[in-house]
Amino acid sequence: MQKEHLDLVVDFIEALLTAGNYAVAREQIVDMEAADIALLLSEFPEDRLPILFRLLPKELAAETFVEMDNDQQELLIQSFSDTELREVLDEMYLDDTVDVIEEMPASVVHRILRHCDPESRKTINELMKYPEDSAGSIMTTEFVSLTADMTVRDAFKRIRRTGVDKETIYICYVVNESRILTGVVSVRTLLLSDSDDIISDIMDSSIVCIQTLDDQETVSQMFSKYDFIAMPVVDKEHRLVGIITIDDAMDVMEAEATEDMEKMAAIMPSDKPYLKTGVLETVKARSPWLMMLMLSATFTGLILTYFENSLMACAVLTAFIPMLSGTGGNSGTQASTAVIRALSLGEVGFRDTLRVIWKEARVAMICGVLLAAANFIKMMLVDHWLMHNPDVTIAVALVVCLTLICTVLCAKVVGSSLPILAEKVGFDPAVMASPFITTVVDALSLLIYFRVATLLLGI
Amino acid sequence: MQKEHLDLVVDFIEALLTAGNYAVAREQIVDMEAADIALLLSEFPEDRLPILFRLLPKELAAETFVEMDNDQQELLIQSFSDTELREVLDEMYLDDTVDVIEEMPASVVHRILRHCDPESRKTINELMKYPEDSAGSIMTTEFVSLTADMTVRDAFKRIRRTGVDKETIYICYVVNESRILTGVVSVRTLLLSDSDDIISDIMDSSIVCIQTLDDQETVSQMFSKYDFIAMPVVDKEHRLVGIITIDDAMDVMEAEATEDMEKMAAIMPSDKPYLKTGVLETVKARSPWLMMLMLSATFTGLILTYFENSLMACAVLTAFIPMLSGTGGNSGTQASTAVIRALSLGEVGFRDTLRVIWKEARVAMICGVLLAAANFIKMMLVDHWLMHNPDVTIAVALVVCLTLICTVLCAKVVGSSLPILAEKVGFDPAVMASPFITTVVDALSLLIYFRVATLLLGI
Repeated sequence: MQKEHLDLVVDFIEALLTAGNYAVAREQIVDMEAADIALLLSEFPEDRLPILFRLLPKELAAETFVEMDNDQQELLIQSFSDTELREVLDEMYLDDTVDVIEEMPASVVHRILRHCDPESRKTINELMKYPEDSAGSIMTTEFVSLTADMTVRDAFKRIRRTGVDKETIYICYVVNESRILTGVVSVRTLLLSDSDDIISDIMDSSIVCIQTLDDQETVSQMFSKYDFIAMPVVDKEHRLVGIITIDDAMDVMEAEATEDMEKMAAIMPSDKPYLKTGVLETVKARSPWLMMLMLSATFTGLILTYFENSLMACAVLTAFIPMLSGTGGNSGTQASTAVIRALSLGEVGFRDTLRVIWKEARVAMICGVLLAAANFIKMMLVDHWLMHNPDVTIAVALVVCLTLICTVLCAKVVGSSLPILAEKVGFDPAVMASPFITTVVDALSLLIYFRVATLLLGI
Repeated sequence: MQKEHLDLVVDFIEALLTAGNYAVAREQIVDMEAADIALLLSEFPEDRLPILFRLLPKELAAETFVEMDNDQQELLIQSFSDTELREVLDEMYLDDTVDVIEEMPASVVHRILRHCDPESRKTINELMKYPEDSAGSIMTTEFVSLTADMTVRDAFKRIRRTGVDKETIYICYVVNESRILTGVVSVRTLLLSDSDDIISDIMDSSIVCIQTLDDQETVSQMFSKYDFIAMPVVDKEHRLVGIITIDDAMDVMEAEATEDMEKMAAIMPSDKPYLKTGVLETVKARSPWLMMLMLSATFTGLILTYFENSLMACAVLTAFIPMLSGTGGNSGTQASTAVIRALSLGEVGFRDTLRVIWKEARVAMICGVLLAAANFIKMMLVDHWLMHNPDVTIAVALVVCLTLICTVLCAKVVGSSLPILAEKVGFDPAVMASPFITTVVDALSLLIYFRVATLLLGI
């Protein structure tokens, strides 16, 4: 739905509500998708929420509830009667209920759990025990299970009987009496088979599974690799405990990419949308890294102070410091970003370290020489000849260009190897990105600069 | 498949091939997923490829082919007999064929088109006319279409008859005689309905559609919002021309996130995995931005030269330049990254510009004051008191801290507004990220620094 369109609909429904014309208001809403209704509701003042929500039919109400903000969900739960709460909970998938519970204050959680049926409550408690970001924490336990000796006809009967409450019915899982996963069969295969065919003859028994403790990033990588619409989650004994559907894997992929970008920009990740995050929350997410990087930049300052006399002796060198440290930072950022992304897509691992460094070293040499050449021409043409700066001699230009090559080389090697090493020792490679690398390379480039200047200019 | 495991399998199959034991080699492979077979094949020398590929049953062969690298695909096509080529093409979905064709040299494309049946050829030509990155270019034309007057029984008959070749059968599309899309019905609904129910009674007629010319980023946003497993693509007259399945939308999401990260790191995007991109290609993707940013850093150098005398008069100021420009760069990067991501997830638009700037300004003020306070304490305690640097006076510390606050404010405001403005005028906001912002803020922070120093220290 377009934002402009949204405003119109909000005004129209508000007018209908004010006029007490609930039937027409309901008609306007019920044909929309749950995600759009949630968006719509978020535009209304809080006191309208319960009235609007009660206009929705049961199933759509539950779907809409899942799509809403935590704040609005909490507000709604508090306005629900016990019966209403029970109805919404009945319609929700258990993995969605767990997601809601995880964001609610304790009193609301108690109320939710009190109104779940005992079996759901048990499952919810089990799901909540899985570590955050593990496959177990994002799976759902509502899947269609078959046994190997069923016929296709039996399978369809079972799907028809139990399918209403399942998150997907298109992939069915075949388990034996110990709940061990023995095969997978799709509704497509079932439809294209004969009614009397036996499941064990048509099922696929070479199954790609997820382990409950697998990282959710691995899960989204597997979905993007295999193009399945659902994947089974098994425990250590290969018992089927749940499934993950591709739409949840897609949400994980989006969240993981956002998290990586935030970490790469020295922001501590949050899972709230930009405009929903308060000013103080944003400050909390951003200031720790800013503070740390600011204090580490002090070292770079110390290096400058240390070489103050050299700088005094050849003041023209100062003018090229921002260019050198900027180029170093940018080169390092390029390498680290490329490697961090390759790591998180599973394209590169620790065993590729040397290959990566060797590649980056060659890239750095070529980039460095190109940049140095351009810079040499620019210094001679613009600074020396056009702007008649007598201090920019060939020797100074050589110092700057040589430093440039060495800095780019250092930056690319440091930028590409730090993320891999970080991952190896169990840190998140994404924090080794741009700002961190820039700070390290800043100091390095100055050290190289003064070293080269001392050697070539004898200062 | 684990990489270590992969090496073992490769060695084992190589041994089997050398011994001429093709039957056992085949057995090893045929139970694997297509994506894994493609990975496996990529580990073998080129001359083994055709032999191994011929071991695969037809359908699996086509699926594996789609998962392979372009180089390997080209190699295989050249080794195919005309019959083999036709068999693989017959089994492939048309959108995959188009993807392959787009990466092949002209001679190979001609050979492929010559061996497609006339109808496929026509569809392929039509699909190739859609602009790159449009919904039309990623859709497939192989979907199940029903008419509104069919019964559920008819629908299942049609799915059974035509479903084998369709990319998904789980969502069926109802069209009228002019091919206008009038409804959508899922196999789930069909299975839970009565055999004699009429499609028009059970179909959902409020349909969320994609337009052929919609950007593929919009497509992946819609999938992540609505959680559909397939979405219909219609032309301007609302005629159904194709569908997009969620696995393709997921690939788009992954590719778009990678592209954004690359642009944000001043790399020109490529769609090859890191280790498959050659050194020269990498240089070509990275050097243009490095070059441009290097030359623009010259301005920062000019500012330093311009204020050379002030620096001489109060040399201690030099030591704090890296910290100031570093903090400015980091603050700007944080703001621009947060806004760029929000833009690409559709959370923020041009109409939110003022809200974003107002938020960033408040965040900047708080961050700036926190950083300035920490820095003041550090300068007084460490530089002045501990290291006995007489040049670091309270006045100097005040200059540095005041500059810090102004720089953070400028950086956050510039960093958050540039991406939004870029998007408004039709540029990609992602290029307004880290390196670009850093370069701009670098110059700004110096100007502020010297201005404040002149005012407070009278130099």
